[in-house]
Amino acid sequence: MTTEDRGPASSFDQLIGTEWISDDPADARARVPLRDDLRQPYGLLHGGVVSTLVESLCSRATAIAVHPDGSIAMGQAIEVSLLRPVTTGGAEARARARHRGRTTWVWEVEVFGGDQRLCALAKMTLAVRTRPDQA
Amino acid sequence: MTTEDRGPASSFDQLIGTEWISDDPADARARVPLRDDLRQPYGLLHGGVVSTLVESLCSRATAIAVHPDGSIAMGQAIEVSLLRPVTTGGAEARARARHRGRTTWVWEVEVFGGDQRLCALAKMTLAVRTRPDQA
Amino acid sequence: MTTEDRGPASSFDQLIGTEWISDDPADARARVPLRDDLRQPYGLLHGGVVSTLVESLCSRATAIAVHPDGSIAMGQAIEVSLLRPVTTGGAEARARARHRGRTTWVWEVEVFGGDQRLCALAKMTLAVRTRPDQA
Amino acid sequence: MTTEDRGPASSFDQLIGTEWISDDPADARARVPLRDDLRQPYGLLHGGVVSTLVESLCSRATAIAVHPDGSIAMGQAIEVSLLRPVTTGGAEARARARHRGRTTWVWEVEVFGGDQRLCALAKMTLAVRTRPDQA
Repeated sequence: MTTEDRGPASSFDQLIGTEWISDDPADARARVPLRDDLRQPYGLLHGGVVSTLVESLCSRATAIAVHPDGSIAMGQAIEVSLLRPVTTGGAEARARARHRGRTTWVWEVEVFGGDQRLCALAKMTLAVRTRPDQA
Repeated sequence: MTTEDRGPASSFDQLIGTEWISDDPADARARVPLRDDLRQPYGLLHGGVVSTLVESLCSRATAIAVHPDGSIAMGQAIEVSLLRPVTTGGAEARARARHRGRTTWVWEVEVFGGDQRLCALAKMTLAVRTRPDQA
Repeated sequence: MTTEDRGPASSFDQLIGTEWISDDPADARARVPLRDDLRQPYGLLHGGVVSTLVESLCSRATAIAVHPDGSIAMGQAIEVSLLRPVTTGGAEARARARHRGRTTWVWEVEVFGGDQRLCALAKMTLAVRTRPDQA
Repeated sequence: MTTEDRGPASSFDQLIGTEWISDDPADARARVPLRDDLRQPYGLLHGGVVSTLVESLCSRATAIAVHPDGSIAMGQAIEVSLLRPVTTGGAEARARARHRGRTTWVWEVEVFGGDQRLCALAKMTLAVRTRPDQA
């Protein structure tokens, strides 16, 4: 599929500077370089940036994967365990679709900091539904 | 305590436009008005903005509450169930600290859309630790 | 509906001794009295009993509520934060269906110990699907 | 360490029939054979048995690992995504400690059914604290 099939670009991902690396459901990847306006009060990368990165990556990769079947993906739940602060470099999320059901996809996600240490573990659940124009 | 005691302002909250309403642990509130650059590809408010709002609110309210005891709060885990999309107006989070332990605080959070309908339910866990300068 | 419509009794709930109090989606309740064979190695009520109580209560109350529509409910995800150990009396779960969607129900659950103190907070998500014989 | 160092046996694990396979934090394993009294109303393995298996395995493996340091482990949070029902054979949990911090351990867990298909994904968080007699 072409980029156009993925729908319009994501404004919020542009705002935080998400860089797409891979949409492969077996090894999807994206990263956000650290900038001063992505920090929380103590100067660390805001956990909300980590949650956003996870949700964007899994949503995008699922949407692309189910598009040929006439389906769309909608984020349903996200869980993030914050293990270590990210202080330099940025964050890279590496996601694996562990369940690709007819109505539900479930992803496990690792997030690494600029030093390549594991800084967060996440799980994202998406509902898969028939695209309105295909129903 | 004064605003200065809360540490420097949060850059990321400024970027997304978070408005603080209440830091009361029994009814903490904050909101984010919807702007075009907070949308995901389908034009809805990005779920990452919802996660950010929840995390910022609970982190800030816990930090303020434990500061007099010489402690700091660090986000440990966040779970968000996305129930309905937010398309207009913005999102308001209302949080209640359900557990205020010596080492852990747990919050339950409701997020309402511009139409006052419940659009997300969240839980946030924070670790409470002695402030370095107090140890 | 009659009890028979709810299907056969739950063997595992009988094994742990679950007592049903209310199936009202606005205030569903069930409890498990503490017995020695429900303890973990330190003598506390096993967290798995708490998870079981939450899952049984939400599954049963959802199943009963959607049955007249020709639907069934299937547990999809459960999250439990363990706040305080239960050492005497037992555990009582009080659940509220916060989202009753066409395809998904989401419950918030409080679990109280024998001393009426909050010992756990949980969230349970169920998928609602058309009953095979109604499709 | 000897078995005695692990404290008294777990009554609830005996009740459901948990079989310990490995306590290795890099690949901890345990299983529960399916029995009729472990079923929920539709005849499937009760999800509470899956949650119990995950919690028992991670708690035990963490307790054994931190015991030489004079510490104990207390279950703090568990999240389970139920992907497929278990109808025959039993369930086997395979857990990996992804974060072994000074105060917190986080595990990722896969649960397989009798047919070796992935039936659940879980995450378990434990608080690690100084043992009372070591403080």
